[in-house]
Amino acid sequence: MSSPETQTTEPKIYDGLKGVIAAKTEIAEVDGQNGKLTLRGYDISSLSGNVTFEEVCFLLWHGKLPNRGEYDALKAEMSAARELPEPTLATLRACAPFADGMDILRIGVSTLTIGDDAVDWPINAPADMPSALRRAARLQAQIAAVVAHGYRLGEGLEIVEPKPEHGLAEGLLYMLEGKEPSKARVAGLNAYLVAVAEHGFNASTFAGRVIQSTNSDMVSALTGAIGALKGWLHGGVPGPVLDMLDEIGTAENVQPWISAALDRKERIMGFGHRVYQVRDPRAALLSDAADKMADETGDHHLLDLIKIVEQTTVDELEKRKPGNKLRANVELYAALILHAVDIPSEMFTPVFAVGRTSGWTAHILEQMPKSLIIRPESIYSGPRGLLFIPMDERE
Amino acid sequence: MSSPETQTTEPKIYDGLKGVIAAKTEIAEVDGQNGKLTLRGYDISSLSGNVTFEEVCFLLWHGKLPNRGEYDALKAEMSAARELPEPTLATLRACAPFADGMDILRIGVSTLTIGDDAVDWPINAPADMPSALRRAARLQAQIAAVVAHGYRLGEGLEIVEPKPEHGLAEGLLYMLEGKEPSKARVAGLNAYLVAVAEHGFNASTFAGRVIQSTNSDMVSALTGAIGALKGWLHGGVPGPVLDMLDEIGTAENVQPWISAALDRKERIMGFGHRVYQVRDPRAALLSDAADKMADETGDHHLLDLIKIVEQTTVDELEKRKPGNKLRANVELYAALILHAVDIPSEMFTPVFAVGRTSGWTAHILEQMPKSLIIRPESIYSGPRGLLFIPMDERE
Repeated sequence: MSSPETQTTEPKIYDGLKGVIAAKTEIAEVDGQNGKLTLRGYDISSLSGNVTFEEVCFLLWHGKLPNRGEYDALKAEMSAARELPEPTLATLRACAPFADGMDILRIGVSTLTIGDDAVDWPINAPADMPSALRRAARLQAQIAAVVAHGYRLGEGLEIVEPKPEHGLAEGLLYMLEGKEPSKARVAGLNAYLVAVAEHGFNASTFAGRVIQSTNSDMVSALTGAIGALKGWLHGGVPGPVLDMLDEIGTAENVQPWISAALDRKERIMGFGHRVYQVRDPRAALLSDAADKMADETGDHHLLDLIKIVEQTTVDELEKRKPGNKLRANVELYAALILHAVDIPSEMFTPVFAVGRTSGWTAHILEQMPKSLIIRPESIYSGPRGLLFIPMDERE
Repeated sequence: MSSPETQTTEPKIYDGLKGVIAAKTEIAEVDGQNGKLTLRGYDISSLSGNVTFEEVCFLLWHGKLPNRGEYDALKAEMSAARELPEPTLATLRACAPFADGMDILRIGVSTLTIGDDAVDWPINAPADMPSALRRAARLQAQIAAVVAHGYRLGEGLEIVEPKPEHGLAEGLLYMLEGKEPSKARVAGLNAYLVAVAEHGFNASTFAGRVIQSTNSDMVSALTGAIGALKGWLHGGVPGPVLDMLDEIGTAENVQPWISAALDRKERIMGFGHRVYQVRDPRAALLSDAADKMADETGDHHLLDLIKIVEQTTVDELEKRKPGNKLRANVELYAALILHAVDIPSEMFTPVFAVGRTSGWTAHILEQMPKSLIIRPESIYSGPRGLLFIPMDERE
């Protein structure tokens, strides 16, 4: 097909697929130049504080915000789904004592093909989108229960049965703790889940789309996405931001601590992002949400400290590298708000996965009707023509 | 970064990543023009019939065929790993009655982070390749046990404990059936596993590499690969080739049946491949293996029939579309040999996964030291600047 000239040229290898555009998407736009995140047409800053997480789920799946009737129907569907199938509960009981956060989440989610007839498409039939949309809503609810039950069983505690009247954020806290959470904590977790719901073609979302692309099922795709998020290059590690604040301790210590760290060429936790060249817009949302929580709880210590850390880091970086583009990323304030909501730090990544399930499922739904396998090419760079030698003659 | 001219050009979208080269690989070369499959330098036709599946595993993982000492050590490691962790067995017991072949395989494999300390890498540490190689061997053995136990428990039967003296193919048949398999069946299954061990950057292998690329773990990557293989665009559907042979029935009926099917523009099962423009080299290997089995068992009926089907289809296609490149693919003879080995047809894809685990893990091992996330870009094609409306005012 190619001309002799192009055949002899070394072909271009796109390591990590950087710069390759794999698809059009109508779900999210991450504008790294201007620090803007658009979800289905809405700037995320216009949603945050105004909507529940379930409204954002509906928006991501259906491409529109729900009216009252649609919202009530969605919440009823999700509430009913929160009762996990018995084999899933048995699996969590068997495995949670031996598996941490992301592992028990992957294990539990992998079982969720059980007990739902909407999972599989008949061979060669077009994707059944109404069933798939319901499936997304049910899985979103189930995954919050898997996270909560997996955590408690891992701690040697009995699971807490969900209450039908709880929304997702409230229900997650209730199932984690067995007591009604305060309104401030529910609002804080809700703001967090909205902020992390969706962020374009990251590695976990992409893994989910690749799996869906073979016309597999939504559970298989989500299980793969969770596996990808587990990697520490992607899901991040929950401890460092809190460890840093703990080490700094007081407002007076911020300036000398940051300055010394930068002198040692150390990375400051919670700064810098592959896409954003300005402040991550989600940092602003989570900072606002943390403000509100602090007003309610009266505990401003860490929030005040983190704001000084952010300003000092920006100032010190500007002094050392004028014009640099390292700004606060989502992790800086995510750690703060999850800590304020009193989520155990080993559960930060699983709770992130609860929020991101909305985005993952939206992408799986977008991939589904394409019925086109995603697979790149590779170039073989190993040997050829080796001669077979019987085992006892091998070195 | 780009000039004004390039900014206004519609950027190229690589749907399905077709034609994009994502990596160099030293594991396999699929030469579709010449119908050649090279594994680590060896033409697969020089391996088939000369090696056990475990030798191919070692070759794919280590880049060389094992000497006697290495082979014995590998078999001892795999034999010991076949005893599954108790939580994995409990999960299979809980879920197998409610989950079919690929679902129970995904569920069981997802638990295999349990009970193995070599699974996780310390953060920021370089990949621990000796541990990872052992992990691959152990998982390869475990997955055969998950397939066998999952099947039996799904059928309401008790599991069959593995015997340490069995190799992988022999052990898989023994654990499936609870009786010592004949040498001919072991040889047939062995030939099948060697033929399907590895085939380059297909969608499941790619899914596994994407998950590994975040520095996740081998179990998460394998679980994702299994999820991708489940899709009927990739793992195929086991029944059709056997159904076709069943429908044709006799040698005399081949010509009228194929001719009528082509007149109706129907696809003949087991023909055509995305990459191969000639006969799939694995079809030849499996046809040879089927010949040997038929000689041992004395049952030549289906084999004779399938050969007539292949020749007739090629002849009839040539008459209708001279120069066409539709030739027998691996599925035509794979169905035949798995049927001859007496694997239930609903287990064809899980048994394929047992063979392909060797290739998947080889690719995961190749990806591991790169520590580079695989994620392409996307283009947003949805709306922007929508105004937020409170719920009760929405349509």
